[in-house]
Amino acid sequence: MRLRHIPEAEEGLAANPHIVVTHPKNYKGKFQKRFKKNQPIHLEIGMGKGQFIVEMAKAHPELNFIGVEMQTGVIYRALEKVLEEGVENVQLINTKAQMITDLFAEGEIDHIYLNFSDPWSKKRYAVRRLTHFNFLESYHQVLKDKGLLSFKTDNRKFFEFSIQMFNAAHMTIRELSLNLHQDLEIKNIQTEYEEKFSKQGKRIYYTQLSFDFFQAVDETALDYI
Amino acid sequence: MRLRHIPEAEEGLAANPHIVVTHPKNYKGKFQKRFKKNQPIHLEIGMGKGQFIVEMAKAHPELNFIGVEMQTGVIYRALEKVLEEGVENVQLINTKAQMITDLFAEGEIDHIYLNFSDPWSKKRYAVRRLTHFNFLESYHQVLKDKGLLSFKTDNRKFFEFSIQMFNAAHMTIRELSLNLHQDLEIKNIQTEYEEKFSKQGKRIYYTQLSFDFFQAVDETALDYI
Repeated sequence: MRLRHIPEAEEGLAANPHIVVTHPKNYKGKFQKRFKKNQPIHLEIGMGKGQFIVEMAKAHPELNFIGVEMQTGVIYRALEKVLEEGVENVQLINTKAQMITDLFAEGEIDHIYLNFSDPWSKKRYAVRRLTHFNFLESYHQVLKDKGLLSFKTDNRKFFEFSIQMFNAAHMTIRELSLNLHQDLEIKNIQTEYEEKFSKQGKRIYYTQLSFDFFQAVDETALDYI
Repeated sequence: MRLRHIPEAEEGLAANPHIVVTHPKNYKGKFQKRFKKNQPIHLEIGMGKGQFIVEMAKAHPELNFIGVEMQTGVIYRALEKVLEEGVENVQLINTKAQMITDLFAEGEIDHIYLNFSDPWSKKRYAVRRLTHFNFLESYHQVLKDKGLLSFKTDNRKFFEFSIQMFNAAHMTIRELSLNLHQDLEIKNIQTEYEEKFSKQGKRIYYTQLSFDFFQAVDETALDYI
């Protein structure tokens, strides 16, 4: 995603330390302290401009939300939305790619969302895809026992790869839609990106998974993916 | 599938006992005897008019093929194709819905194909879908240890259901395409039905699975499908 330079971003983030977590590692295992109410924490990795997380936060005052985003200009847009909407159950973390296990303690998170993550289409970059088995292990670690992972993308090849990864890790596919916007029984809050692409008639692929039977993937047995 | 009445069908089948297996149960565990060469047996359940199995048989003389079909008029069309093409590695079974385990012994089959099976769209008929877990168990029984199941359909809901079933049974998704006719790296022989519908621009969904980690499904834990 390319964004115009926003000079006030750094400054704006620094000026809102009640929403933007300045030293996230200090809160590992203690993120509940950042919220007014002690309630389940839902985490969006790669939150983008924040439409999804802010809408979710408004629809679910009974939940706390954390959005992680590495691009400063982008997370600043999300901060603006949080401020505009006055939602009190969202915290934002601006961090460059680091393992989620460095940020969160075991079982600290109830639900993880991956929305339109970078597909890293070239095969040599497959390890960077956020559904690669290395990442699945880290999600399993920070999630509660009954924790969930939700994933949506418009990239067919990325989705196919991801389903095979989830399956190889013996994760349970609890929800699956190969054309999300036609499945009105699945409640869906759109991201900015999704809104744009679905208007163009692009298909959105979606799945939700649990980790009940999760097994670390044996890489040597993965030659078929 | 609706077919015009073909009065000569019964007669035609009876006249070709070297291709049409008249008493299939007599061959349980001994189907190799029906073929000229002792080589792996691939089985298509619901073979229809036989385009797929006959093309496969021509492309793979190193394999034996069995096609099962319950509609007499339909299997007769397949018989005509076998005769026309002169393929010697195809056997046909005309049988009404019975469990595959009644027909084949443990480990007798190397590969099972389900092509455009009836989706039984109504939820109350889900147990009749050929990817329902009851059937998966029977496939597992008749397949060799390294045996494979291939499945394709144009019905999105049926495919989603099937992927969830395969996943619940801890089957390994070795190949997956959510738009088969765009994935030219996957070798594909079309059925009559597929040819017609893909020409209309319909998407074909495809997957191939192995049973390495197969587990019988605990029905009580399946409330999410």
